[in-house]
Amino acid sequence: MNRRKFVMRVGKAVVALSVVLTCSLSEGQQSVAVLIAYHSATGNTEKMAQGVAEGAKAVAGTSVILKRVGEVASSDLTSSDALTVGSPVYFGNMSGEVKTFFDNWSKWDLFRERKMRDKVGGAFATGAAISNGKELTVLSIFAAMLVNQMIVVSGRGGFGATATTGPDSPGIDDKEMAEARDLGKRVAEVAALVKRGSSK
Amino acid sequence: MNRRKFVMRVGKAVVALSVVLTCSLSEGQQSVAVLIAYHSATGNTEKMAQGVAEGAKAVAGTSVILKRVGEVASSDLTSSDALTVGSPVYFGNMSGEVKTFFDNWSKWDLFRERKMRDKVGGAFATGAAISNGKELTVLSIFAAMLVNQMIVVSGRGGFGATATTGPDSPGIDDKEMAEARDLGKRVAEVAALVKRGSSK
Amino acid sequence: MNRRKFVMRVGKAVVALSVVLTCSLSEGQQSVAVLIAYHSATGNTEKMAQGVAEGAKAVAGTSVILKRVGEVASSDLTSSDALTVGSPVYFGNMSGEVKTFFDNWSKWDLFRERKMRDKVGGAFATGAAISNGKELTVLSIFAAMLVNQMIVVSGRGGFGATATTGPDSPGIDDKEMAEARDLGKRVAEVAALVKRGSSK
Amino acid sequence: MNRRKFVMRVGKAVVALSVVLTCSLSEGQQSVAVLIAYHSATGNTEKMAQGVAEGAKAVAGTSVILKRVGEVASSDLTSSDALTVGSPVYFGNMSGEVKTFFDNWSKWDLFRERKMRDKVGGAFATGAAISNGKELTVLSIFAAMLVNQMIVVSGRGGFGATATTGPDSPGIDDKEMAEARDLGKRVAEVAALVKRGSSK
Repeated sequence: MNRRKFVMRVGKAVVALSVVLTCSLSEGQQSVAVLIAYHSATGNTEKMAQGVAEGAKAVAGTSVILKRVGEVASSDLTSSDALTVGSPVYFGNMSGEVKTFFDNWSKWDLFRERKMRDKVGGAFATGAAISNGKELTVLSIFAAMLVNQMIVVSGRGGFGATATTGPDSPGIDDKEMAEARDLGKRVAEVAALVKRGSSK
Repeated sequence: MNRRKFVMRVGKAVVALSVVLTCSLSEGQQSVAVLIAYHSATGNTEKMAQGVAEGAKAVAGTSVILKRVGEVASSDLTSSDALTVGSPVYFGNMSGEVKTFFDNWSKWDLFRERKMRDKVGGAFATGAAISNGKELTVLSIFAAMLVNQMIVVSGRGGFGATATTGPDSPGIDDKEMAEARDLGKRVAEVAALVKRGSSK
Repeated sequence: MNRRKFVMRVGKAVVALSVVLTCSLSEGQQSVAVLIAYHSATGNTEKMAQGVAEGAKAVAGTSVILKRVGEVASSDLTSSDALTVGSPVYFGNMSGEVKTFFDNWSKWDLFRERKMRDKVGGAFATGAAISNGKELTVLSIFAAMLVNQMIVVSGRGGFGATATTGPDSPGIDDKEMAEARDLGKRVAEVAALVKRGSSK
Repeated sequence: MNRRKFVMRVGKAVVALSVVLTCSLSEGQQSVAVLIAYHSATGNTEKMAQGVAEGAKAVAGTSVILKRVGEVASSDLTSSDALTVGSPVYFGNMSGEVKTFFDNWSKWDLFRERKMRDKVGGAFATGAAISNGKELTVLSIFAAMLVNQMIVVSGRGGFGATATTGPDSPGIDDKEMAEARDLGKRVAEVAALVKRGSSK
């Protein structure tokens, strides 16, 4: 082997290796941070939040932070790649606590500078009766996210994950928990996809 | 004419007179109480609230109470025949302050006992840009009212009275003020109609 | 008693009697016409429509017309005191058939002349899954009604009557049928109330 | 320079070059197909559609197909990476034509097999008055997209691009046209980002 051939051979090997490394990194080890923010008075929405967290964690390379809306700091939001918000239904929409959480984004200058732009958003809701506002809650959470130029995804069901928790169907049943996990998985997967696409 | 006949005759006359008076009263002088509850940070929603009040007062027999949502007591709600709620648009929906006002209805047992049932509801909203959530705000206020079995009416425009208040169209202009007055008039008129119908 | 006094006495008695009769009539026998317009592909929404009809008929003095949206004529709408519209959920909202039914109101000049103004409106929806668009369907039907200045009411549930009809809960169960009947009753009662109030 | 150093230097240069080439390919030449489907009776929504098309075309590597909803075939949808749907507001929501377009997705088996999954969606609307249903139209288009597991984005304004076209503000003005272009740009950019992320 003469010097020229050797150089070419080594060069090609290094190229191959580096491309493989780059690809593995972008495919397998892209770290995605999912923030799950929720309000829960009875524990039902919290249980759904845990289901969403389980689903997100099941996606390789995903880290999850689970916080009550009142405990979320501005930095939790800006350092995340995705945000999933959950609320009990109070009078046909998200609770005042959850709405106030969104309103704080103004104070935190997240809106003016569009700091949440391109982060992926999902939503979940729990309510006593079947058609009592769970959809409107999820759609209203999406509206808040879209105004901030986030990218919105649904879960397996219609718009987000929901659970009926009133007397006829108390607590979170297996099907509702599976819906929560599906939502977490979906949000994490799309966030990974968007992050990979952005980093190229 | 003997005494018994005279008594009967006078009695009948009194009945006739009182029924006639009752009818006049119910037609022309049925007193209707309209509560206007609003949240305003910059004064725009407050100005719209004043327009709604003007419109309602223009309907004969209407009394108006104008209060910030944080000042509304449970008794203000139960003693009213109609409720018109106004909010600035914060992230595509009513502000946390207005949502919390509705959430308090639970604490005040207005929902469990359906104390707001059959009261007439209207809504108004102000927002910086044209399609930034004013409609969703009005529809979400309606949703809260409908869950409480209130009777919902629109104004002259689509769903309620709205005003665009951002840089391109600062403050409340004449057309928006006219829309606010129309909403107040409409709410008062339908409330009078429902009250007359109920009292028969 | 001379002739003049006798005439007066009889006259007054007749007045009293007639006012009493009028009041009885307006209270108990005010005739209210409820139109129920629906679209149904599988029979589920039709069954809900029948439930709404039963509930409305149970209110004394109510006549009910039940028609598929494609068969409703302009005169059916203008001659009714209340309208209840039902739709299956197709992709998160009312079906194209039901939307086209509303769009025809323009061609029929119902909107331009506000011919549906002050008529009472209700809505019902059926959908395969729990939070798949039944609420948005009902709210969208309300939106169409409110633009036409109709007066909107909810049923016993959140916004209107809904039924889940997918594999997990096929057909219309007793609870859903009861919700349909409650909606019919509510719409008929409020329509009677508004009609009595208007005729005074 | 000894042999070892030379080899390393050449190797690094080749690596750098290859990575740059790979990056250029994924960044610059990823072809993204944007379908714009609209209904227009007066020409206003069509003009907005053209604005959306201009905005999308301005993103390098984007091809645009502009079609009336009635002319869109199933293959137009499945072969696109992004879909932007526009409708005039009829009675507070998208027109029957646009709703029927979505309903056809069932017949075309797009829903059952989730063939629209992960495609990016945007929406625009035109309406005679300011708050007459443009928002609800855009949100209802989003709802249809989300049920199909599409990924939803907003434009510069609240939820999508909108234009007020009634007597007070006839036609599409410059600001509304700019909003349409912004929406097209946004949809094309996010679609490119998602496609790049998916292809890695």
